[in-house]
Amino acid sequence: MNNVEVLTKLFLNYLKDQRFKSQPLELYEPVNYIMELGGKRMRPVMLLMAYELFGDKLAEALPAAYAIEIFHNFSLVHDDIMDEAPLRRGKSTVHTKYDTNTGILSGDVMLIYAYKYLSQINDAKKLAEILELFNDTAIKVCEGQQLDVNFERRQDVTIDEYIKMISYKTAALLAGGMKIGAIIGGACKKDADLIYQFAWKTGVAFQLQDDILDTFGDPEKFGKKVGGDIIQNKKTYLVLKALELADPSIKAQLTILMNTPTTNEIAKVAAVKSIFENLDIRKEAEKVKNRFQEEAFQALAAIDTPESKKTPLVVIANQLLGREV
Amino acid sequence: MNNVEVLTKLFLNYLKDQRFKSQPLELYEPVNYIMELGGKRMRPVMLLMAYELFGDKLAEALPAAYAIEIFHNFSLVHDDIMDEAPLRRGKSTVHTKYDTNTGILSGDVMLIYAYKYLSQINDAKKLAEILELFNDTAIKVCEGQQLDVNFERRQDVTIDEYIKMISYKTAALLAGGMKIGAIIGGACKKDADLIYQFAWKTGVAFQLQDDILDTFGDPEKFGKKVGGDIIQNKKTYLVLKALELADPSIKAQLTILMNTPTTNEIAKVAAVKSIFENLDIRKEAEKVKNRFQEEAFQALAAIDTPESKKTPLVVIANQLLGREV
Repeated sequence: MNNVEVLTKLFLNYLKDQRFKSQPLELYEPVNYIMELGGKRMRPVMLLMAYELFGDKLAEALPAAYAIEIFHNFSLVHDDIMDEAPLRRGKSTVHTKYDTNTGILSGDVMLIYAYKYLSQINDAKKLAEILELFNDTAIKVCEGQQLDVNFERRQDVTIDEYIKMISYKTAALLAGGMKIGAIIGGACKKDADLIYQFAWKTGVAFQLQDDILDTFGDPEKFGKKVGGDIIQNKKTYLVLKALELADPSIKAQLTILMNTPTTNEIAKVAAVKSIFENLDIRKEAEKVKNRFQEEAFQALAAIDTPESKKTPLVVIANQLLGREV
Repeated sequence: MNNVEVLTKLFLNYLKDQRFKSQPLELYEPVNYIMELGGKRMRPVMLLMAYELFGDKLAEALPAAYAIEIFHNFSLVHDDIMDEAPLRRGKSTVHTKYDTNTGILSGDVMLIYAYKYLSQINDAKKLAEILELFNDTAIKVCEGQQLDVNFERRQDVTIDEYIKMISYKTAALLAGGMKIGAIIGGACKKDADLIYQFAWKTGVAFQLQDDILDTFGDPEKFGKKVGGDIIQNKKTYLVLKALELADPSIKAQLTILMNTPTTNEIAKVAAVKSIFENLDIRKEAEKVKNRFQEEAFQALAAIDTPESKKTPLVVIANQLLGREV
């Protein structure tokens, strides 16, 4: 069993070797740019961990791990165009550094390369199964992005709808990727489904954690600007739960705050945060997050493989979910 | 052997049954819109014809035919955004009818659905082979689009480079699709490669034909506006050949015409057309087109299947290539 540091290093070495040298340069230079921009490489590393629960020739899982990472980055490139985001990991987004057309076309070719790397799986039967799973995963990611766009315009988003949206947009790719790792490793159907459940629930818990940290996190430790979701009027779990619990007058206050262009950011963040605090929303969010986290670990516990093999997954999940608040 | 009318009808019936009913509506309505906008359905029909050279259970090739058509339409949706094209087949383009973000995301999900339909191939070994071919085809289409974009900015495009660009942008998908049809039908490697050659050369000849018709076609019969390429300063085969053959003063005239914003469309078309006529460019273009056409038919002739089975392909290729000038 390799730990997160060893697997990250292994993956980064593989990634470096895949550098696109092909022509036309205008198409592939932006691909190299975004792929080398960094990030935690959480998805490919967790795919490799899922592989190691069952298989012992780790190198055979690397192309699929790369496929998941290139798909993830494709979705970032296109989402950043749609969100008009200027920055990604502190650097210019692809469409800002180059232009929108480059972002569209380089993103497209990345999506195709994700399939090309996936196709390196030698076993034709496994490939067919994995391909079906990857297609359904990729469709969920697109649907999740569309739901996210729709929610910006809607005033009646329910908490269940929100959980579905973050499941599709965030959890599905982690789950699909880890199940692919498990299948390559030779997991039986039951165990492959359990690793999918583990990753799906972990992904949802991770996103809820991100919602909590965005408002209540330590500005020193949180990678993004604390209060960013409030400033952007994002309908996170915190907002939706507050709208559910608040009495009519507080609900009206929050609704007005959420529908008024932000002029004084500090005052707005303080006002919304104070509503959350009066309603004990952080505790509510952590309760739901903990429920997903527990269900994730139950799924992991049910997998038929020695407990010692599960250690790296327990460690990384705890890192992702618990230790940063 | 079914002829083009029968196969088109069969394909259109299949297409109608695939209508996306899924949520979110905002994602899938644009997909239904573009898929039902019409077009000749040349690629899927020719894939079915390639299948019929070797196989006799036509229905098994329909999902792959649909995959090629949905991929083609994905590329149109994204290309139309990049080209800022308001119209497609006389109707609003997707990004004009909806918006650019919808065009990007609905296009993305179409690309994924192309793979999903392709994955319906039951034979795992054939699927692995076809997947590899489809990946390489899709990458060529993206690279062709990038070369086309690059050529707009370049003044030193060679005829060889132009042929490569149209091969990738137009011929590759026809070739990849027909080879997929042949493989599903059970063709041996040699015959599958020959059908690829036939389609590739036919695709290039078809694009050269389109270049010729865009300037010299009958406005009554040509689907697009005659002279459109000249007005848009497109570096077609006609222009590149004229630049090669012209003496310095005519070359300078043509270069100025091509680099000046069009104010009087009729005068500009007449001026460029007159340069082409003085240099006998139409004849040059037809010579090259005929060479590709002959090579295409040579490849078809070499395929080891009864000549009678090849009739629908001969008919459709002649329709596409010869009878409209």
